[in-house]
Amino acid sequence: MENEYLKFAKEIALKAGKIMKKYFNNNGEEYKLDNTIVTKADKEINDYLISKVKKKFPTHSVDGEEKQFGKSEYVWVCDPVDGTSMYAKHIPVAVFSLALVINGKPTVGVIYDPWTDNIYFAIKGKGAYRNNQRIHVNQIALDDMKSVSNFDMWPEAEYNIYDAIKEIGKKTYFVSIGSVIRACCCIANGDFNLAIYPGTKHKNCDIAAVKVIVEEAGGMVTDFFGNEQRYDESINGAVISNGLVHAEMLQAIKNTLKNKR
Amino acid sequence: MENEYLKFAKEIALKAGKIMKKYFNNNGEEYKLDNTIVTKADKEINDYLISKVKKKFPTHSVDGEEKQFGKSEYVWVCDPVDGTSMYAKHIPVAVFSLALVINGKPTVGVIYDPWTDNIYFAIKGKGAYRNNQRIHVNQIALDDMKSVSNFDMWPEAEYNIYDAIKEIGKKTYFVSIGSVIRACCCIANGDFNLAIYPGTKHKNCDIAAVKVIVEEAGGMVTDFFGNEQRYDESINGAVISNGLVHAEMLQAIKNTLKNKR
Repeated sequence: MENEYLKFAKEIALKAGKIMKKYFNNNGEEYKLDNTIVTKADKEINDYLISKVKKKFPTHSVDGEEKQFGKSEYVWVCDPVDGTSMYAKHIPVAVFSLALVINGKPTVGVIYDPWTDNIYFAIKGKGAYRNNQRIHVNQIALDDMKSVSNFDMWPEAEYNIYDAIKEIGKKTYFVSIGSVIRACCCIANGDFNLAIYPGTKHKNCDIAAVKVIVEEAGGMVTDFFGNEQRYDESINGAVISNGLVHAEMLQAIKNTLKNKR
Repeated sequence: MENEYLKFAKEIALKAGKIMKKYFNNNGEEYKLDNTIVTKADKEINDYLISKVKKKFPTHSVDGEEKQFGKSEYVWVCDPVDGTSMYAKHIPVAVFSLALVINGKPTVGVIYDPWTDNIYFAIKGKGAYRNNQRIHVNQIALDDMKSVSNFDMWPEAEYNIYDAIKEIGKKTYFVSIGSVIRACCCIANGDFNLAIYPGTKHKNCDIAAVKVIVEEAGGMVTDFFGNEQRYDESINGAVISNGLVHAEMLQAIKNTLKNKR
């Protein structure tokens, strides 16, 4: 049964990639009430997913970043275009992400990067893949010269992580490539060792597929305080890592995060 | 005469893009003594440039990030692959950059992004272009919801800018896309409003073309303290902006940068 879900998710992902490419130079960006951007691609992909789920898995529900449908223990959690700001500015790092979350746990995850034509996926308990190749996290420490890490931060973020970034940034080369999900693909395939993401409200869409893919690649995904969390509802930040550097980042968060903003 | 320089620089740029694409999936990354990465593409492009300059402008010199040649008042300043770490990790944001610097002043600048096939260029006094279209900086303030800014920071950087980033990050959405030059293309064409770059030693290679392109697009490029600087020798950091937000960033640097590290 799970393979049917994976097959379905991959088909949606490839179609989403086509839609992202179609609007790349003319994306129709608009600002939402929370000051974030939505594009034609976000809307069209989200609508497409809902129509397909209704048809194929009518008892399931959809939690898309732009639109939701139904209420079920089986939820297709989707970020149609992660890295929308970069996408709107024609920087090819944005990706599509879709997870089947069952009772709060991501069970199947698919991420598609249409710019390099790589599809990342995992089924819980069955390993993580890029295209047809098994992928694994690296074992690079933060103070290794090869260490590359990612963070996201924006003025309205509920947690201000700049002090934590400053502390850990003494060791690692921090980038903020503009798509947490794309960065997490780099963790799963061993290119990056860490990502830190202060998203909360409805930001399960960003981390649901990452959760199963990075963990099946041998890494670790928790909330900001090292706890497991559900991915069919708002989350409490996310730390995504190769496992090796996880505790060090959690400690830096604990040391520096005095209050929610 | 200047058009001859521009034509030459554009030809080199397109060839460089081909080389970058050729090695994208197999880039042969190596670590240099300063812990930064060099790839096959960096070396091949740098060598190609030197061979072409020797032939076409034998009295000029070349200051490439990987290799130099000659000593002249006319210097071709080149970053063969800016954003090498991202390039090595198969993230398509790295770009090629080349400037003709005459007596320390960038006079012609060309930047090529092979992933989206956009060439950015300017001749001093004659405006900035993307492909055949004039481009202009935006007039977006840091506290505008549309504000997107970029910074670069790495453990060995001579200036630690995290406190400045934290101060300005209360207002703007900061990313660090992994290539300062690519980010500066976004400033020139009105997508970003600011970039802050703490590079010093031999980092004129990163900013030389940016200097003429961003300023011809109506923006401003100075060192970390608001001063003009030469681009045929090491620089003292760089602040690149739409002009409107320049003073605010300089003030934040002044407020927070107590010492060189």
